[in-house]
Amino acid sequence: MTYETLDWSVDADGIATLTLNRPDALNAFDLTMARELERVFLTDARDDAVRAVVVTGSGRAFCAGMDLSAEGNVFGLDESLSPTPEDLRDHLTEEPFHSALRDTGGRVTLAIHALPKPVIGAINGAAVGIGATMTLAMDIRMASTKARIGFVFGRLGIVPEACSSWFLPRIVGIQQALEWVYAADILTAEQALTGRLVRSVHEPDDLLPAALELARSFVVDRSPVALALAKQLLYRNGAAPEPLDAHLSDSLAMFHTSIGDGKEGVAAFKEKRTPEFTGRASELPEIFPR
Amino acid sequence: MTYETLDWSVDADGIATLTLNRPDALNAFDLTMARELERVFLTDARDDAVRAVVVTGSGRAFCAGMDLSAEGNVFGLDESLSPTPEDLRDHLTEEPFHSALRDTGGRVTLAIHALPKPVIGAINGAAVGIGATMTLAMDIRMASTKARIGFVFGRLGIVPEACSSWFLPRIVGIQQALEWVYAADILTAEQALTGRLVRSVHEPDDLLPAALELARSFVVDRSPVALALAKQLLYRNGAAPEPLDAHLSDSLAMFHTSIGDGKEGVAAFKEKRTPEFTGRASELPEIFPR
Amino acid sequence: MTYETLDWSVDADGIATLTLNRPDALNAFDLTMARELERVFLTDARDDAVRAVVVTGSGRAFCAGMDLSAEGNVFGLDESLSPTPEDLRDHLTEEPFHSALRDTGGRVTLAIHALPKPVIGAINGAAVGIGATMTLAMDIRMASTKARIGFVFGRLGIVPEACSSWFLPRIVGIQQALEWVYAADILTAEQALTGRLVRSVHEPDDLLPAALELARSFVVDRSPVALALAKQLLYRNGAAPEPLDAHLSDSLAMFHTSIGDGKEGVAAFKEKRTPEFTGRASELPEIFPR
Repeated sequence: MTYETLDWSVDADGIATLTLNRPDALNAFDLTMARELERVFLTDARDDAVRAVVVTGSGRAFCAGMDLSAEGNVFGLDESLSPTPEDLRDHLTEEPFHSALRDTGGRVTLAIHALPKPVIGAINGAAVGIGATMTLAMDIRMASTKARIGFVFGRLGIVPEACSSWFLPRIVGIQQALEWVYAADILTAEQALTGRLVRSVHEPDDLLPAALELARSFVVDRSPVALALAKQLLYRNGAAPEPLDAHLSDSLAMFHTSIGDGKEGVAAFKEKRTPEFTGRASELPEIFPR
Repeated sequence: MTYETLDWSVDADGIATLTLNRPDALNAFDLTMARELERVFLTDARDDAVRAVVVTGSGRAFCAGMDLSAEGNVFGLDESLSPTPEDLRDHLTEEPFHSALRDTGGRVTLAIHALPKPVIGAINGAAVGIGATMTLAMDIRMASTKARIGFVFGRLGIVPEACSSWFLPRIVGIQQALEWVYAADILTAEQALTGRLVRSVHEPDDLLPAALELARSFVVDRSPVALALAKQLLYRNGAAPEPLDAHLSDSLAMFHTSIGDGKEGVAAFKEKRTPEFTGRASELPEIFPR
Repeated sequence: MTYETLDWSVDADGIATLTLNRPDALNAFDLTMARELERVFLTDARDDAVRAVVVTGSGRAFCAGMDLSAEGNVFGLDESLSPTPEDLRDHLTEEPFHSALRDTGGRVTLAIHALPKPVIGAINGAAVGIGATMTLAMDIRMASTKARIGFVFGRLGIVPEACSSWFLPRIVGIQQALEWVYAADILTAEQALTGRLVRSVHEPDDLLPAALELARSFVVDRSPVALALAKQLLYRNGAAPEPLDAHLSDSLAMFHTSIGDGKEGVAAFKEKRTPEFTGRASELPEIFPR
């Protein structure tokens, strides 16, 4: 597929680089970019040849936020409607893309979250509004010294969206999450590091290489199935009521891998050789009830 | 309203200062203070003219804990009763104030938590027992260098109350929460900062001005509706099972604000002027099922 | 009881030391050790004379991971079976020990988690695979400078087990948890401290004394009932949807302790004497619905 607003490339190790590519608009997020981001995570990124995804921005920004230059409801919502929770619940499973009811940013972050492989945000510059919240659904965030991150919704009279209220407290704790959202300020890379939003800060030219290297360290000689299940386990059980819930999905995942890639992994370990895993992230067992 | 144990004042920007005001008793928490704290958060603080609340103590203590000098059951519980979970669940919705079944501190923290605006604890001195746990329901905690914070329940043969077991692990992580509760020691301000319980430490004379300044930075030129919904989203979705749950409430909140204060916010942004928000925190849409 | 793979001793203050004791095999975890660990936490450790448990390893390792030298399915699972979630749910309540369906490590960590008293991991050396994940169900982790901790599952084609996906994000946050599991590397003690996995690092000879001293500080002159209920409250309410859920269990626990050990605790406080608590951790009220 080709994209108007994105650049997508995959290297020999299966590390994809996804570049937000509207540099003249500071990679502002418009409805075309929303549609394309959802699509790339639901299609190209799910190819088994892709092992991990690094997301960055073209030019000096990562993503300057929602493109507010549109006419009408800039958030893509149909103002003639007045949705109830029930309306929305129905729309979660079946609908055309522009449901005009659902938060656009959330469609993107749900697609990122559902990808069964590691996703790393390489925040190269301004990441504001949806530019900030979209990174929260990525597993790891790294920043350039030039990164500037802002949960600025309060200044615009809107709320933090894109499922950010699910992710942010789990990354930085509830006190830090509340302060950043209330303050609606622009954070420096250093502030984001101190607050544990990003895992490391890099010189601008070093950021993308470091992100690609980290991604590579996650996947080379690893089982795609083991990584995919581990991602599901950590997010789902990290939010489950009791350890007993985790025991159920753990047991299913251990059973599945112990007769699959785990058998090869143990054999290779005993024989002191590199494992040859054959499992595919596109063919996972269901370890959680729907 | 007037209060025996509290001082309540609101400045021109809508920043309220709530002072625990029994300095001769180190602001110890008795049943009158409990009743008044619940009342102030359910009534005065909900006035739309109030935009944020800063809580501090009069004199050298913040709150030295439950006043243990009372006769009979110092916790206000009726020992002739033997409540079951069902009894208590019934009492959560209808009852006179001194139900004699419900944890008194929890009534206060539930009222703090339910306030749809920022609450900042300015811990000026000793904050022990309920004096410590009541601050956990506040969104942000700041401390004076003279603050001393103690989750001392274990030494008295009782448990950490006031919903503190819901809040504390979300603020400092489960390992730190367990250690502080097991140790039942008095923490210095510096220890509280290192453990991420408080967001900053200040010279005694600087504490209240800093807290008021932070509160002001949260609300001036902001939409009260956007702040109120953001607070709900972060607490509720931060404890929800899946990002999809957040998407539902996000979408409702985005829809509501995009046709309300968000419209003014975007217009003001485009016109490079200060927004004039008209939404009221007392009139929020229901974005979560009851 | 006697154990083949464990050493168990209890001192005069009720502090138990549990030593993984297969030093020639670097305390590798085999099915005998699994069975014995589950048993010690469900029987000996539940004796009211035991007030807290410190877990460490004999020799230079803590636990080098699953013993991969076994024949057949090294994880103890019966490969002829193909469990469904329903099969497993049935097996959670009734079954012989080697159900051949359930994750072996999870049986151990569920037994550790269910112990109603403090458990401290004293990580003296290599803690790899199940050697690392078993420590996550302990309340507090301390490390020697020689500790090396590895969530290495990805390299073997298997998933992090033993309910580790429930515990790890609650201890270190979701971003750090994902990175460590994806990287599948061996962490130094210093890295574990920076990432907040362990609460402190000690010279090798100082580790066990420090762990015993911390355990002692948790229990001497404390109510076993208050500690036991506090542990339940923090884990359960830390994962509950709303503060109101905590209010229910808080109220029950406060009621129970206010007419039990809390009465003695308050009296001793008023009389400036050491309390004589009589409550027993083996006789707890049910404060959570089953």
